Parts: sequence; C-alpha cells; structure tokens
Amino acid sequence: MSPPPSTTMKAARYYGVHDIRIEDVPIPQAKEGQCLVKVAWCGICGTDLHEYEAGPILCPSASKAHPITGETLPVCLGHEFSGIITSLGASLQGSWKVGDRVVVEPVISCHSCYACQHGYNNACTSLGFIGLSGYGGGLAEYIATDEQYLHKLPEGVSLQDGAMVEPLSVAMHAVEQAGMKKGDTALVLGAGPIGCFVIKTLIAKGASTVICSEPSSSRRRMATLAGATHVLTPPREGDIIAQVKALTEGNGVDVSFECAGVQATINTGIGALRPKGVCVNVAIWSIQPKIDMNALVLQEKTLKGVICYKNNHSSALSYLASGEINLDGFVTGTAALADVVEKGFKELINNNEQHVKILVSATGKEE
Amino acid sequence: MSPPPSTTMKAARYYGVHDIRIEDVPIPQAKEGQCLVKVAWCGICGTDLHEYEAGPILCPSASKAHPITGETLPVCLGHEFSGIITSLGASLQGSWKVGDRVVVEPVISCHSCYACQHGYNNACTSLGFIGLSGYGGGLAEYIATDEQYLHKLPEGVSLQDGAMVEPLSVAMHAVEQAGMKKGDTALVLGAGPIGCFVIKTLIAKGASTVICSEPSSSRRRMATLAGATHVLTPPREGDIIAQVKALTEGNGVDVSFECAGVQATINTGIGALRPKGVCVNVAIWSIQPKIDMNALVLQEKTLKGVICYKNNHSSALSYLASGEINLDGFVTGTAALADVVEKGFKELINNNEQHVKILVSATGKEE
Ligand SMILES: [Zn+2]
Ligand SMILES: [Zn+2]
Ligand SMILES: [Zn+2]
Ligand SMILES: [Zn+2]
Repeated sequence: MSPPPSTTMKAARYYGVHDIRIEDVPIPQAKEGQCLVKVAWCGICGTDLHEYEAGPILCPSASKAHPITGETLPVCLGHEFSGIITSLGASLQGSWKVGDRVVVEPVISCHSCYACQHGYNNACTSLGFIGLSGYGGGLAEYIATDEQYLHKLPEGVSLQDGAMVEPLSVAMHAVEQAGMKKGDTALVLGAGPIGCFVIKTLIAKGASTVICSEPSSSRRRMATLAGATHVLTPPREGDIIAQVKALTEGNGVDVSFECAGVQATINTGIGALRPKGVCVNVAIWSIQPKIDMNALVLQEKTLKGVICYKNNHSSALSYLASGEINLDGFVTGTAALADVVEKGFKELINNNEQHVKILVSATGKEE
Repeated sequence: MSPPPSTTMKAARYYGVHDIRIEDVPIPQAKEGQCLVKVAWCGICGTDLHEYEAGPILCPSASKAHPITGETLPVCLGHEFSGIITSLGASLQGSWKVGDRVVVEPVISCHSCYACQHGYNNACTSLGFIGLSGYGGGLAEYIATDEQYLHKLPEGVSLQDGAMVEPLSVAMHAVEQAGMKKGDTALVLGAGPIGCFVIKTLIAKGASTVICSEPSSSRRRMATLAGATHVLTPPREGDIIAQVKALTEGNGVDVSFECAGVQATINTGIGALRPKGVCVNVAIWSIQPKIDMNALVLQEKTLKGVICYKNNHSSALSYLASGEINLDGFVTGTAALADVVEKGFKELINNNEQHVKILVSATGKEE
C-alpha cells in the first residue's frame, strides 16, 4: 500500500437527476482527528438509485446546504464501503494505524436535537449520511473521515463483506427492534437486498421459521440462498396470509418485516401476525397506505417504523467474524469506478431483480 | 335487601337494529359456581349504541350463535355494571356472601386459542362479552354470573363508580400498553367517555402534561374536568401538531391516544409524537385510514392497537378506593330501566356530546 502517486483522484459526484459525473478532484488530506482511507469496495443501494432517478432527496440541493455538513451539490456518492487507512491526521496515532482495514458507519447527526440527546441519533431531525449529504463518499478512490465514523474490520472478514456491513446493520437493527427471540417465527415481505439481509439475521439469531413472500423468481432464489425456510410467490399463490398461518399452526408469525413498501405487503405484514405480533416497517414509502386499524386493535398488534441502525455495526462485524453470518453469493456484480453509471446505476435500474449488491472499486478488482 | 317478591324481572333485550324491548323474563337462578347479582347501576356505551344503530356487530345474529355462549338474538344488553349479591350457588359459600357489592368484568374468552393460551384473553379470536354475546346483561334487574367474572367493590367506592370500572379499565390498559412513565407528556385525541377516562388515568399515573384535542365544546369541558392540563380546539386552532410541539419544548409528546377514530386524529396522533414515541389506538374504525409510514420510519415511532383490558379491574378499583382517581361529574344522566331506549339510547344518540355516562337502574334511583 504505497502512498498515492498523484494528488488527484477519481470521484463519482452527483449533480442531480440522471447526472452523475466521474471527475478528477484533489485527494483529501487527513485533518486532525481524521484518517485518510483508500476505498476498497463500495456498494450501490436503493437510496442511491432513488437520488439518481428522482433526487435530490437525501442529497442537499444546489442552493440549500445540508444543515450539518454545510455542503450543496455536487456531492460524492457512496455510503456502503470498506477501505484501508493510508495516512493519519494529528492526535490519532494511538488508536489507528496505516494499513488498518476499516468500514464506515456513515450516519451524520446533530448531537443536539431531542433524538440525538436521547440516544437515537438515527432519528436525528437533521439526519445525514456520508456519501449523500457531504463529507465525501465511498464512490471515490479516497475519503478523509473523522475517527468517530470508523470501525475496524476483524481479521478474516473480507473487504467485500465489509462493504455490506452497512445494509447488514440496517437488518440487525430491524430484527432487534422487532423484539425477535430465539425460536420465533418470522415473515419477510420482499427479498431485495434489505429483505435478504433480514432473512440472514433472523436465521443467525435462531428464528425457527423464516417465511419470505416475493413475486420475483430471481429474488426468491436469493431468499432461499439467504436461508428462508419457506418462500412464497404472490399473487400466484393467492392468499399469503392463509399460507403463513398454515405454516405456523394457524397462529400467524411472531414478527413480520415490511421491506417492499406497497399496499399489498403491508396488508400481509399485519394480517399474517399472531395476536400481539409486531410488524416492523423498514421500507421507505412513496404512498400513504391504508391500514386496517381494527386488525391492530382486535389482536393488539404493533406497527413499528425503524431507520438505519444504532450501535449495530460492531454486532454485525462480530457475526461476520464468527461465521454465524456469511454473505456468500450476495455480490451479484462488480464495476470499476469509471463505469459506475453504466455498470452500476443503469445495470441496477434495468436488471434490478437480478441483483443483491453491485460493488464498485477503483479498477473493478480488489487491489 | 330482601329476596325478590316475584319470579320475573324486567330486562332490556336486543332483537336487532332499533329494536330493544323491555321484557318480563324469569329471574335467573344461581347455578353451581354462580352468584345471583341484583344490578345496581349499568352504563350504556358506544358499543351498545353501535349495536342499536348498525348491529348486530358484537351481538350474535338471530341465526348464528356466539361460538362460546351458544346464544342467538335476542340477548340482554349491558356490560358496564355494578350490583349486590342476593344469592349464592353451590360451592361458593366461602369466597362470596349475600350483600357483597360487586362489579363484573364482562370479557368472555375461549381459553384455548393462541391468544388465550398466551395470556391475552382480551385478544381471543372468539371474544365475547356478557351483555352483548349472551350470559345475561346489566340492563336487567338480575344476572346470574360465574364467580370468575366478579370483583368485590372496595368499601367507600360507590355503586355508581363501580358501574364505570369497566371503561376505566379500558383506559388503564391503554395507558399501560403505551409504556407511559411518571413525568411523561401525553396527547389524548377525543374527549368522549374513553378519552376522559384516559386523561384521568394519565393524571393519576403522574403524567406531567396531558393535552386533549377535541372539537366539541361540551366535551372540552369534560376533558378539563378530567384533569387535562391543556385543551385544544381543532380545526379552529389550526395545526394541532404545531401547538402540541410548542407545549412540549418543540419535541412532541411521549405518548398519544387515538380515541376518536377519524383520519385527522390519527394523523395528529402520529405527527405530534416525539422521536420514538408511541401512539396507542383505542378507537374502533369504520374506515381504513391512510398512514404516513415515512413519519413512523424517520423517527422510529410505534403505532399500537389495544382492546379491552387484561387484569386491570383490580388496579382500577384500587385507584378508586384510594381516591387517586375519582369519577365525580362523569355521570351526566340517569334513567329507569323501563325508559332505557328513550332516556338512554336515544338521548345518547341525539345529545351525544353532552354526555359522558348515562347510568341505568331498575327505578332510575339507587335503592
Ligand atoms: Zn444504503
Ligand atoms: Zn440530531
Ligand atoms: Zn363498553
Ligand atoms: Zn381465545
């Protein structure tokens, strides 16, 4: 890992809808309290695609800066990434060293709002993300990052798996918030990336039955790969609630996870719960669905929103280090940074159901 | 309390929509394990009005029996009542005596479904109620009731207050399920009977701020009587969420209670919560409201359905006995059993907002 020969690097910068440019920008310097990280792998997620197709949403606009980062467009994209420390700013010598393999926990929060002061910085009213709101991003060759955002990648966990720790942490948080216990039965609605990571987590945490409902056949294969014990096909298989009940002694599941965000799935997520069951909503919605409140009432069910993660990265890294969770098969494509629009964003938009994660590196390979 | 001179009694029996008949029926006998209770006071609640106007809903139909009671129409109405034991069936001599003042916990459950077997008999899939599903009711002069449904009324608690223990238990259960803690802030949407009892309970349990939002001026007076610290008037006062935030240091309330069951109130109930807040839905719905799922997600809010009560009667009776809760002013009318349709049901339908509880007794007075 020799120091970079040039003073500029490539970065994928977001200017607005359908406008991501691969530009030469100065390599950042590690300031006091920061590490300079050479990015190894960076995933592209649904949020990135959403910015590309309909943004800016989480990204600031060209005229209105993010309240914490103070940055406006363009911003560097990429919030799911791993890398290697190549230099250290002042006052960091003890805790980190050049060559350390790291992953970034990208949540940016204000530390002063009600949520932040009560320990829920994931619900910060000014919530931002490295790779969306400023402070650089993982779709670049380098990023200079404050120590607070870094976690060491344990020995034996690959840099590719490291790039998937962020979405895995989303899943671990969702499962934790559901109050899921060993032996519980679960239903996962949608087997996109987050749905698959939720299935993995449920199995690792000892769920006895993990049912997945997913209309796409390629995604159903991914659900099976992730470890789902039963995979159902709506709408072909008709009444999913009846089938879930048949698989759970007529009772319904203890917990359900809405990872699709459409009217039919939230209906199923609530309807397929046993009395007192919990439906955790992970999806972001583009409509306001109708909710059968009487179903919540008559069986005292709970509907809970969750976002991001809260101290889940360490736990996700432990599960990966111990092998209790492996992410084999979830990287469905790789791309070089220069090709990120064609082989990353456009590929995911055109063939979305074929993919779990496309990972990007400077060259498209691991160096 | 001399034994009844005749062998028949008056009872208000429900035959269907707008058809409640005051009939002479045999006075029931206390069988083994039962007490014969002379009803003192019986309240009429929204559920009863709903049956009168649009039933049978919880009542069985004329052709389809309730799965537990086995009864069809007509059924005796009245599930919120107090009374005095006048005779005892075999095998009860030790625990109960003639003259004991009692209240009835009217939930009928199957003891075998998933909910019942896991201790949530209030979410029983065959849920029924004395006074709706069979086993007699409180809108009669006498009822023979199994020991399991009875609670002793503590000394110093009036028979009128006893008749309000059932709706008070609903409120106590809702507040318990919200996870409300001493010092918490709360919003109550709707100041009908249940809203008022929820306010009372929140104050008794040490809520620091109890805001009530209610469009009717007479109900707002009841909310104030119940102890609400702030009473707001929608839609005249405009954005209730903004006002709730202004009253809670900009944060929103810890817990909210949906006791109205309309689109505007559920929007407010969710929108006015602080991050991680809990909205408890007590209302029964005639529509499926649209829910802003992203509001649940971005601030990790919870929406929870609750029904009835679960071991709340003893606690409600203790609060009444200690004076921590008093129900003074909540009886807004009394009626004799013979007049229950005109002076009870029709009065409540025509002048609903003027009333919290109308209590009925054989003569309209306490004997
Ligand atoms: Zn993401
Ligand atoms: Zn904050
Ligand atoms: Zn009632
Ligand atoms: Zn049951």
